Amino acid sequence: MSFNHRDEHVDDGMLLLQANLDDMNPEWCSYITDLLLEAGANDVYWIPIIMKKGRPGVMLNVFVDECKTGDMEAIIFAETTTLGLRYMRASCHRLGREFIAVDTRWGTVQVKAGFHQGKMVQFAPEFKECEQAARKHQVPLKQVYDEVRRLFLETYGE
Amino acid sequence: MSFNHRDEHVDDGMLLLQANLDDMNPEWCSYITDLLLEAGANDVYWIPIIMKKGRPGVMLNVFVDECKTGDMEAIIFAETTTLGLRYMRASCHRLGREFIAVDTRWGTVQVKAGFHQGKMVQFAPEFKECEQAARKHQVPLKQVYDEVRRLFLETYGE
Amino acid sequence: MSFNHRDEHVDDGMLLLQANLDDMNPEWCSYITDLLLEAGANDVYWIPIIMKKGRPGVMLNVFVDECKTGDMEAIIFAETTTLGLRYMRASCHRLGREFIAVDTRWGTVQVKAGFHQGKMVQFAPEFKECEQAARKHQVPLKQVYDEVRRLFLETYGE
Amino acid sequence: MSFNHRDEHVDDGMLLLQANLDDMNPEWCSYITDLLLEAGANDVYWIPIIMKKGRPGVMLNVFVDECKTGDMEAIIFAETTTLGLRYMRASCHRLGREFIAVDTRWGTVQVKAGFHQGKMVQFAPEFKECEQAARKHQVPLKQVYDEVRRLFLETYGE
Amino acid sequence: MSFNHRDEHVDDGMLLLQANLDDMNPEWCSYITDLLLEAGANDVYWIPIIMKKGRPGVMLNVFVDECKTGDMEAIIFAETTTLGLRYMRASCHRLGREFIAVDTRWGTVQVKAGFHQGKMVQFAPEFKECEQAARKHQVPLKQVYDEVRRLFLETYGE
Amino acid sequence: MSFNHRDEHVDDGMLLLQANLDDMNPEWCSYITDLLLEAGANDVYWIPIIMKKGRPGVMLNVFVDECKTGDMEAIIFAETTTLGLRYMRASCHRLGREFIAVDTRWGTVQVKAGFHQGKMVQFAPEFKECEQAARKHQVPLKQVYDEVRRLFLETYGE
Repeated sequence: MSFNHRDEHVDDGMLLLQANLDDMNPEWCSYITDLLLEAGANDVYWIPIIMKKGRPGVMLNVFVDECKTGDMEAIIFAETTTLGLRYMRASCHRLGREFIAVDTRWGTVQVKAGFHQGKMVQFAPEFKECEQAARKHQVPLKQVYDEVRRLFLETYGE
Repeated sequence: MSFNHRDEHVDDGMLLLQANLDDMNPEWCSYITDLLLEAGANDVYWIPIIMKKGRPGVMLNVFVDECKTGDMEAIIFAETTTLGLRYMRASCHRLGREFIAVDTRWGTVQVKAGFHQGKMVQFAPEFKECEQAARKHQVPLKQVYDEVRRLFLETYGE
Repeated sequence: MSFNHRDEHVDDGMLLLQANLDDMNPEWCSYITDLLLEAGANDVYWIPIIMKKGRPGVMLNVFVDECKTGDMEAIIFAETTTLGLRYMRASCHRLGREFIAVDTRWGTVQVKAGFHQGKMVQFAPEFKECEQAARKHQVPLKQVYDEVRRLFLETYGE
Repeated sequence: MSFNHRDEHVDDGMLLLQANLDDMNPEWCSYITDLLLEAGANDVYWIPIIMKKGRPGVMLNVFVDECKTGDMEAIIFAETTTLGLRYMRASCHRLGREFIAVDTRWGTVQVKAGFHQGKMVQFAPEFKECEQAARKHQVPLKQVYDEVRRLFLETYGE
Repeated sequence: MSFNHRDEHVDDGMLLLQANLDDMNPEWCSYITDLLLEAGANDVYWIPIIMKKGRPGVMLNVFVDECKTGDMEAIIFAETTTLGLRYMRASCHRLGREFIAVDTRWGTVQVKAGFHQGKMVQFAPEFKECEQAARKHQVPLKQVYDEVRRLFLETYGE
Repeated sequence: MSFNHRDEHVDDGMLLLQANLDDMNPEWCSYITDLLLEAGANDVYWIPIIMKKGRPGVMLNVFVDECKTGDMEAIIFAETTTLGLRYMRASCHRLGREFIAVDTRWGTVQVKAGFHQGKMVQFAPEFKECEQAARKHQVPLKQVYDEVRRLFLETYGE
């Protein structure tokens, strides 16, 4: 196999921002996730936690390049109810990545492949495209995934 | 061993009330728990759940005698943000229970014992009393628990 | 206050369907939630659970009118990886509901109010409309919520 | 496709047993799960919950045929710290099931297929066998799964 | 608006201490939280985790000034069951804070406001005072919150 | 008391590796945990999280000596579905440890004791040995634990 893929690398200047929220309307979470991703966060996720007095809170986590800290903080302070946030330095090891098109009976679907030290170790059908194919053709989403994976393996499997 | 204990029994007329909350301030949870227990709920607990649009909500659970449903509903509708609740019929199997005093170097602590078909299967130091002893005598709480359990077993263990 | 609201009532013919999933791609969850809601589920939510061999699975919960069980099952069996599901009979107590328009500086936003025994016990700004106003006018979502709630209370608060 | 599979059916006489545990050593959970499954439970799983005073407890869930309730209770009362348990009546809809052998380069692996109204809607490689093949042949477990699924689909896919 | 508020700042010498607990009685958690906060922890929270052999454990998190590490460790080792703990360096960005009194029909309630770059971005009624007002005057806690927020916004809102 | 125990110490060169997984079969988790522990990880645990689009994912956490990072990464990239991972520097404070044999009516069971600044602060019966004794002698696991703890305290308690 020979792909022209984006290179595997390590980013050292990353931050993990965290804010514990025990007094926020959870309806806002998905909106806040979207705003942070649109503003350049690499990843945004929420962890259910138990805070003082037994409050079932959530911890907002934002993984982001250090240079975007100010933008993230502006969003977090404006949109959540937190009075502070903490951050820790982190590094990120990203696999090399390549998109490969697979032709299925429901149209073309991109597969994202990941490479570690030049060897393909991951491949995953693009969710959005599988979802669209499933909706459009009225087939189960899992059938689309299975078919894309099968076709990909036939050509690119060992 | 011969205890004069409250009898093991099954209550059939119980309800499990549930309300999914995706727009409530989690600060209120412990207060709501207290109100429901004071009004006669047998048990109140919260389960972290994921609701539509990826909202990290919580499910309020109230386990209660059917005849108290109205009181529970009044509290839930007044104090939470829910627009409805669901309930399921349930039975409750309760062990026979007996409190037994254990004398420790930090004072007397009650132990709650549980009996299944006449045999002692559980025993647990009362949390409140252990906590008070630990605070008062400045010893680790776990040491108090260990000591109470050890002393209880010396007298009542098989 | 005098509203012409949809009546408070109890539905007895409800089912809670549950399926424990320990081998499914979690990417599919939101898609499955959407399909079930579109097909008439009253509520769909997911609970993180720990299954045998320590697997961090999820439990799919579908709350639905008994007469739609077949439709729900068809979707669940087609779209998830489960080999079975369980269901329990349940009742649902729904508050009376009314939508009330509130005029804000960012346009009109609907507020959903809930009534228990004729008394308003809940009111909540519609998420979708608040989100649109926040996006369009570039104001924090929480500011929109606060303003809508304040304006609503000025007119309809006790 | 024509399989001679075990029939799809609904079991109505099932119980869901639940016990909330806020004072038990979590080390014991997997042992308890094993004992309950060995004694005939259909499913055993644990849900993280928040109990009174903010305790991060766990809820034991046992799904079982009603006729085995006594055996389950004996184990739960002997092995956990609970002073009671609740149960709710439930039904279980089980798909028809068939095991189908697939020959791979790492040996034969069984695939469990599920049938709803005569149509195959599920198929899943047996975990234990995939794990053994992965361990023995020093290949990633996910590669074994992928290969078994691909081979199964080549023969039995639509 | 002109407040005389405590200044926004960043503390760099913070530590996040973590201990995974898979063999501790969860009853002790709230007591341990209290001890750690009393001894100077900035924040204490618990995360449900899944540990080896599928044990549903909890992770204790203590966010604290580096100079108090010894005190925290003494409490953690004395009161929990852990044989070790890990820590990571962290920074904490704290908003400027100001308490503002709001007069309600149920008495005065303090509101904590948060300032980012001189602009008020947060305000939250003090839980303890709202709880007391609700208990004393027998009104729903959420009504107290709503009223305090409405009155605050009338004076200090944009 | 005078034990010849392994010394208490702090390891500074540790890393916490994390990978968020929203598209992986949860069946693989325990297998991956085993592989990582066999390859030298100090600890492996999973945290339920909520990822973008409301996906109920899991976060893999591996706590490991920095010099083993490459081995851990090779396993994580080969066995999970992640396209990247992050890591943070961490320190680990380990208590001094000593194993002490306790003779019970069901045979000898090791107790692991932990020492902070020369003082015993922890003791825990070895799970594996208790489990074997419970299975072999058909007694409740909690009874074995209780007995081992009681006997240990009689000899080594203050």
